[in-house]
Parts: sequence; C-alpha cells; structure tokens
Amino acid sequence: MSDDPIYHVDGDLVPASEATVSVDDRGFRYGDAAFETLRAYGGTIFEWEAHVERLERTCEALSLAHGLASGDLRARIDETLAANDLEDAYVRLSITRGVQPGKLTPRPEVDPTVVIYVAPLPRGGLEGDSVWDGPATVRTVGTRRTPDEAIPSAAKTHNYLNGILARAELRAESEDGTGGADEALMCDLDGYVAEGATSNLCFVRDGTLHTPSTDGPVLPGITRDIVLESAAEVGISVTEGRYELEDVCAADEAFLTNRTWELRPITTLDGRDIGGGPVTDRLSRLYDERVERACYE
Amino acid sequence: MSDDPIYHVDGDLVPASEATVSVDDRGFRYGDAAFETLRAYGGTIFEWEAHVERLERTCEALSLAHGLASGDLRARIDETLAANDLEDAYVRLSITRGVQPGKLTPRPEVDPTVVIYVAPLPRGGLEGDSVWDGPATVRTVGTRRTPDEAIPSAAKTHNYLNGILARAELRAESEDGTGGADEALMCDLDGYVAEGATSNLCFVRDGTLHTPSTDGPVLPGITRDIVLESAAEVGISVTEGRYELEDVCAADEAFLTNRTWELRPITTLDGRDIGGGPVTDRLSRLYDERVERACYE
Repeated sequence: MSDDPIYHVDGDLVPASEATVSVDDRGFRYGDAAFETLRAYGGTIFEWEAHVERLERTCEALSLAHGLASGDLRARIDETLAANDLEDAYVRLSITRGVQPGKLTPRPEVDPTVVIYVAPLPRGGLEGDSVWDGPATVRTVGTRRTPDEAIPSAAKTHNYLNGILARAELRAESEDGTGGADEALMCDLDGYVAEGATSNLCFVRDGTLHTPSTDGPVLPGITRDIVLESAAEVGISVTEGRYELEDVCAADEAFLTNRTWELRPITTLDGRDIGGGPVTDRLSRLYDERVERACYE
Repeated sequence: MSDDPIYHVDGDLVPASEATVSVDDRGFRYGDAAFETLRAYGGTIFEWEAHVERLERTCEALSLAHGLASGDLRARIDETLAANDLEDAYVRLSITRGVQPGKLTPRPEVDPTVVIYVAPLPRGGLEGDSVWDGPATVRTVGTRRTPDEAIPSAAKTHNYLNGILARAELRAESEDGTGGADEALMCDLDGYVAEGATSNLCFVRDGTLHTPSTDGPVLPGITRDIVLESAAEVGISVTEGRYELEDVCAADEAFLTNRTWELRPITTLDGRDIGGGPVTDRLSRLYDERVERACYE
C-alpha cells in the first residue's frame, strides 16, 4: 500500500489526498454522522453483523434513515480493501446525513454521504502481533462522560469532542506535549468509572471479571461483548456494575478493549501498578482463537 | 447573489458547490472545530470584537491554538461578502483543528482549516425586516442540554448533535415531518430550563427580565448579552437565575434570542399562550437602534 491510501467516498474510490466532502455536509457542519471502527483480518471483516447492528442502533438514535443495505456497505468496504491490496487493516465506515436544505433541524429525506477509510495493521489471530507496543498507561481525567440524556452513549457518532477533551487533558500533563498516558479514563457525572476515550475498561478481582455496565454512559463495545461472552463460556464469572476508581485500583488485573487494540493490559492507573495476568492472558488467547477461526481458517 | 454562493475555504474563494474539506480533517472526523454565527448589516460585521472573544474562549476550551490573527479572519469574511456582493448577510466562521497525524489525541501543532459561509438576509436595524415570519412556537423536549463537565457549554463547536436530537424530537411530533414547532427548549439534567437548540431564552414577569444563568449549561449568546445590557441601561431590572418550566409558562412575555433571529417573541410554549409585549418591543427597538448606529450610520 502506498503512502496515499485509497478511500471510498460517496460511491467512488479516490486517493486519500483527494478525498473530500462538501463543507455543507452535515457531517462537517454539526458532526451529524454515525461511524463504526472495524477490523479486517486476512481480508475478512471480523464480526460484521455486530457492526451492522450497532450502526443501525446509532442511526436510529439520530433518526438518520440512510436507506443503504448492509450488503452495499460491505461491498464498498471490500472494494476499498481490494483497491489498497490490504488484508489486515483498520477500517472506518462513516455515514453522514449529507447536505440538506435549511439549517439545524434534520429532514427526513436523506442523501447520505458514505466514507470508508482504511489503514494497514499487523496480522491478528494466533500468529498475530499487537497493534500496541506495550501495555497501556492510563490516567483519570476531569472531563466526565457525556450522559445518555444529552446524547445516547450507545450511539457512535462524529461528535467526539468529549473524548478529545479527555485526551487533551493527558497532553496538558506531559512535558513534551505528546500525551502523558496512552488512555484517558472518564467517570460519569456521579464519579463512577465509565470508559476510556476510545476503549472499554475491564478488571479482574478474586477471579471475577468486572466491567462498568452499559446502564451507565458506556459504549457497548463489540470487543467488550466478545470478551464477556468468552469469559462466561469458559466459566469465568462476569459482573457488570457501577464501580469507583478504588475498585479498579485494587484489582488483580485490568485491561482495555477496543477494535484495534483488542485486549490491552493496563500497566498503571494514575501511576499505581496493576498489570495484566492469567485471566487477561486467557481471554486474549480466546479472542485470538476466535479471530483465527472466523477469518484465517 | 447567485444560487451558488462563494465560500472562503482554507484561504481561497470557491463556489459553494465546489467547497470541500478533506475527509481526514478533524472537523469532519470528530466535529473537532470551533465556529461563530455572525451577522453583516450594511456590509459591517455587528459586534465583531465580541465574536472574536467568544471564538478565543471556545478555542481555549478545545486547546486549539489556531495561530490566526483576528484581522486575518475579518479580512477573509470581508472578502467573502464582497465576492458575493452581499451587505446584509448571515456569516458562519468555522475553524477546525485540520488534518493531523495519529488518531484521536490532538497535537499541539495545528494547521487549521478555515471556512466562511455566507447567505443573504434582509436589512436589519430600524428600517429592517425580521428573518422570521412570525413569533416562535416552542416545545420542551426530553433531550437534556449537555453538562459543562462533559463539554463546556460556553464552547461553540461542530459537536451539535445535542441540539439536533432536540430538534428531531419536534419533527417526530409533527405529522408532516417538517417540525412541530420552531424551537426545541432543553432543560439541564436537574430539570431547570437551559436554552433552545440554537437560541437563548428570556422572559418578563412583573416588569423584570429573567434569563437562565450561564452558571448552568447555557451558551453566553452575544445577542443575549446585548439584550441584558440594554435592559439595564434603561432601568429594566434583570435577573439571571435557575428557572423551572412553570416560571416561564407564567411569564407575561417571553422571547428567544440569537444572532439571526435577533429578538423573537414566543407565541406559545408547549401549547400555552405567552406572546411578546411592551418590554419585548422596547428591547427589540433598542437592539435595532444599536444595529442602526453601529452598521448603517
């Protein structure tokens, strides 16, 4: 793949350097758009159906009736991967409400803009490499996760300033301006642990896997779902709840999940050692096996 | 002005139909951008300094050091108005964090994207016409205004889904899908009245002008500021506070303010009659006089 990857914009394959949207597109003017971050392993999109379902939930939350069939979206992704000669890749699929007459109030008739971004990633599965160089350093920040009453946290949208403000706090703490930690952990308005700017949090205590419940302002991460499902399958007890920071700091193991990181152990939280461990390793192995079976066999 | 106005994008005048930004621009990917809605009256930008100040506050909240001088921004706006042969106009100035390497975490070095939009509006001031056809119908909605702890409400950004979700609720209520009211009134998480999707709320009771305080999640509107200042100047008592919906419903007069609407009386709130009145008329007149003095004399 060249330095200038090929994206898929509004039905056409175009070099990234020339890939644009109208400044009147509502995705630009208001962040009025849904997206999914996906991963291709060996040319296959992992857990495609789960992404389609979440995308639909996002679009329902936004009343964004884009009218596109999932097969059409998948074909565009496959075309983009082929055009870049990519098999192991990061994929971002964005659907905006497009250009509409009038100002803020959305219209029911939508001519959506569809953008597909790709970038190369290492092989995944049993013989794969991690995207990250090492376990994550995590810091809690003052920015609180946007509550569901303002914007539903289950909706994955181009309104991502909440996470950016969280990450910018890390940057402000670091001398070189490159970021004082790998991830910013946000609490909800009541001070309970919610999630990272781009990741879900899991931790292990006395053999039980814990994670903040999606009853709170927590994105239902697809990687998170798989980890919880795998844990239950092999008899690891799983609890979704409301946790204070102290609960996480007192954990035996902790890790973050997202589509590109998969499972990433947390080495320190606010400077206190946690680290991965046997449960994290086992769940990582189960995840890799699932990727291997689904995409490389 | 033609059907295809001329915008100013990244330093160049371009027809709106060809005005684009990169799909990698953070303004598109994340809504990572600041904006101002301005109004030109007789070729002059009204209250330019106030807009510059608020834009700077937004950019500080986003840690977005764009490095552009206000004189440069003003010159681009003036060029755009001239290119469209427009004297009375709506103007939107957007500054994004541009394209940056890496993913979510913002970098300190910014190559901003600047976009200026314009559209014709009627003359303002003493001999002017309102943008709106009649007083506003307003409905309260279930969507709550995003709290400051998640995203500071004083920041005017491209993350505008909160207001869009509020407006979409109105649409859902109307049979023809065009919107059941002119404005959606949002409360804060505690149920106190905050603001409209694109406007501030003022109401008059026993001769006192009331408006929700910016201690709550309320944008410090520039039109709002002028109205409060004018009221104080002519001896109308002004109170900024926390109000319940019942306080507004029991008002003698109520109106909305924003840059394009100026002062717009509220005819009904949730179907209950309120209307403008002598105080609203007086404040409207004072506003028009200020516009006349600043821009047409």
